Amino acid sequence: MSRVETKVAPGRVAVIGTGLIGTSIALALRGRGTEVLLADRDPAVVRLAADAGAGTPLYGRPHEPREPSEPLGSLESFGPADFEPADLAILAVPPGAVPAALLEAQKRGVARVYTDVASVKERPMAEAVRLGCDMTTYVGGHPMGGRERSGPLAAQADLFLGRPWALCPTRDTGEEAVEAATALILACGATPVVMDAADHDRAVALISHTPHVVSAAMAARFAGAPGGVLSLTGQGARDVTRIAAGDPELWLGILCANARPIADLLEEVARDLVTAAAGLREGETEGAVADLLARGVAGHGRIPGKHGGRPRRYTAVPVLVADRPGELALLFQAAGVAGINIEDVAIEHSPGRSVGLVELSVRPESAQDLARELRARGWSVPVGEAD
Amino acid sequence: MSRVETKVAPGRVAVIGTGLIGTSIALALRGRGTEVLLADRDPAVVRLAADAGAGTPLYGRPHEPREPSEPLGSLESFGPADFEPADLAILAVPPGAVPAALLEAQKRGVARVYTDVASVKERPMAEAVRLGCDMTTYVGGHPMGGRERSGPLAAQADLFLGRPWALCPTRDTGEEAVEAATALILACGATPVVMDAADHDRAVALISHTPHVVSAAMAARFAGAPGGVLSLTGQGARDVTRIAAGDPELWLGILCANARPIADLLEEVARDLVTAAAGLREGETEGAVADLLARGVAGHGRIPGKHGGRPRRYTAVPVLVADRPGELALLFQAAGVAGINIEDVAIEHSPGRSVGLVELSVRPESAQDLARELRARGWSVPVGEAD
Repeated sequence: MSRVETKVAPGRVAVIGTGLIGTSIALALRGRGTEVLLADRDPAVVRLAADAGAGTPLYGRPHEPREPSEPLGSLESFGPADFEPADLAILAVPPGAVPAALLEAQKRGVARVYTDVASVKERPMAEAVRLGCDMTTYVGGHPMGGRERSGPLAAQADLFLGRPWALCPTRDTGEEAVEAATALILACGATPVVMDAADHDRAVALISHTPHVVSAAMAARFAGAPGGVLSLTGQGARDVTRIAAGDPELWLGILCANARPIADLLEEVARDLVTAAAGLREGETEGAVADLLARGVAGHGRIPGKHGGRPRRYTAVPVLVADRPGELALLFQAAGVAGINIEDVAIEHSPGRSVGLVELSVRPESAQDLARELRARGWSVPVGEAD
Repeated sequence: MSRVETKVAPGRVAVIGTGLIGTSIALALRGRGTEVLLADRDPAVVRLAADAGAGTPLYGRPHEPREPSEPLGSLESFGPADFEPADLAILAVPPGAVPAALLEAQKRGVARVYTDVASVKERPMAEAVRLGCDMTTYVGGHPMGGRERSGPLAAQADLFLGRPWALCPTRDTGEEAVEAATALILACGATPVVMDAADHDRAVALISHTPHVVSAAMAARFAGAPGGVLSLTGQGARDVTRIAAGDPELWLGILCANARPIADLLEEVARDLVTAAAGLREGETEGAVADLLARGVAGHGRIPGKHGGRPRRYTAVPVLVADRPGELALLFQAAGVAGINIEDVAIEHSPGRSVGLVELSVRPESAQDLARELRARGWSVPVGEAD
């Protein structure tokens, strides 16, 4: 895994497939002044994307009705030879549709170089080679962002802002394809992360595909439950099962395209659950269940970022603040004067109380200084990690 | 399952165990003018709860050091006979500690009637009978709300606002206990739901306990993963594994107290995962995987109020800030000058870049003003929810 940088901005780009991802990319590019051409197998979807300001639809001839077997971004719309090739074409279609879409786009000369956004890389790339695609003008890509909602109306120009975006060049990939894709990623405000395709697929099996199936298997238990019971459901179970709501057709395609690493992980999860169930039946108060809970805490703690467990590199300094405008400014000012960078902030709400607890995350070596500095300025800093 | 109503407000209440749940209840009661007496096996924890405004600590004699075998809400603190019984005592201790805490509280005459907040009912109630507790003055309760964080500093007066709160009276339960517990529930802004203890335990196995173990089994896969891979983790996997961060000791007690219904469900989930894995290995494009995804969508769709228990009170305003000391102070100062209270803050780290994305959550009616104010002061506010 390494990072690449480039300063070339994309000039003229074709987006093939104007769903959530394609349209979000188009909106980001439009915001940078890039000329964007839009195509989709469904003309109504292209029209929606264009109306949302994502670019110009390219209709060659009237579209056929949408068929499930047809790639999402049909290139019929690009028409015949009167089309000037774009600098870059983005195939924003499901993984299984990428090889055929790439072949068709290359045959029609839609662009000089190509990338895609599918969440699986190895199998579609092997299929593209088999179909005879020109792999020198293509580089596989995968922006790590999304929403449960789909379609162009859910698109957001900032969908990938600050997110990693995988690029998977092979020995065959030409420099121009990597440069154009990198410029695209930077234009979307994302961070390019170069990875081997197989490494990428194992990574997303772990951090995206397997969690989806596990979420579905939990949610499936609710299908036959009495309604009164489900009205008691709290936030925990809602979070565990949230992604199970994703489009099942789209997800089936993703899972099948990355079958082996997902199957390995699903079997590991199942083994842990069966072992825990046996421990519970035997009345164990230690052993398998305790071990699984401990491994769950440890695994969760390794996810970086605020919403999935704080990274270990920061120390949280708690401060009591009054719940009124300007208090946080004073607090941050005190930290700024002390020359301490705040890496993260968590605010605990207590509507019933006039005082809130703010946790400032700072580098461990700054925690004591911050606590001392704030206490010296009259802030109430409970004794904690920083001391 | 039925609903009961009462208009009696609790007058004088003892809270035994001042962790997250006990202190949150105490704060809610204090807001209604109820006199609240606080006890915990850990005197430092009682002191924190009292400092947070949750009530008055009741110390009889100096506390012993905390022992894992001791109930969380030690009643040593209530001292001898000079104590005037409260109208209601709430045993806010883990399920396994409820029977002993009830017996001790009844022996000492802490209150006229008793309830608890443990998430398992049948086994602790059987144990209380076995210990010789007076079951006429006790009714089992379980508020359906909580957080990953624990302890009195994480307590919130509105933790149970709008949430269901199970009550599990038996044939032995006296009317006074049900009435006092119902008044307590209403004072916390929650909705009493009367259920049979066995029904309750099967329900929470489904909607709370099993999701916890499933979340842990997914999170456990992250324990050995390369750090670079986990930096790619998106919101989906974060949500699936969020509750895996819960206190493993507390959860072990809960799971063991409700072992059988949880084990049944875990084995069902494991069967689904193994079947799906086999389907993936065999290259199925329909069959088990498609079926599981469809059942997941159906099950998820049966959860009422899909977007969580709490209404979404705040709107997020994104701002790009330089990653250096003092920048957040300037940002909060700008918000403070505009008279806008920041309700929450999220900071997105992008280690490779000098600019970070900060999301300021404010009341929806303030979002536009904040975005305008910040843009006017030269901050980069991407177009989003606020516009």
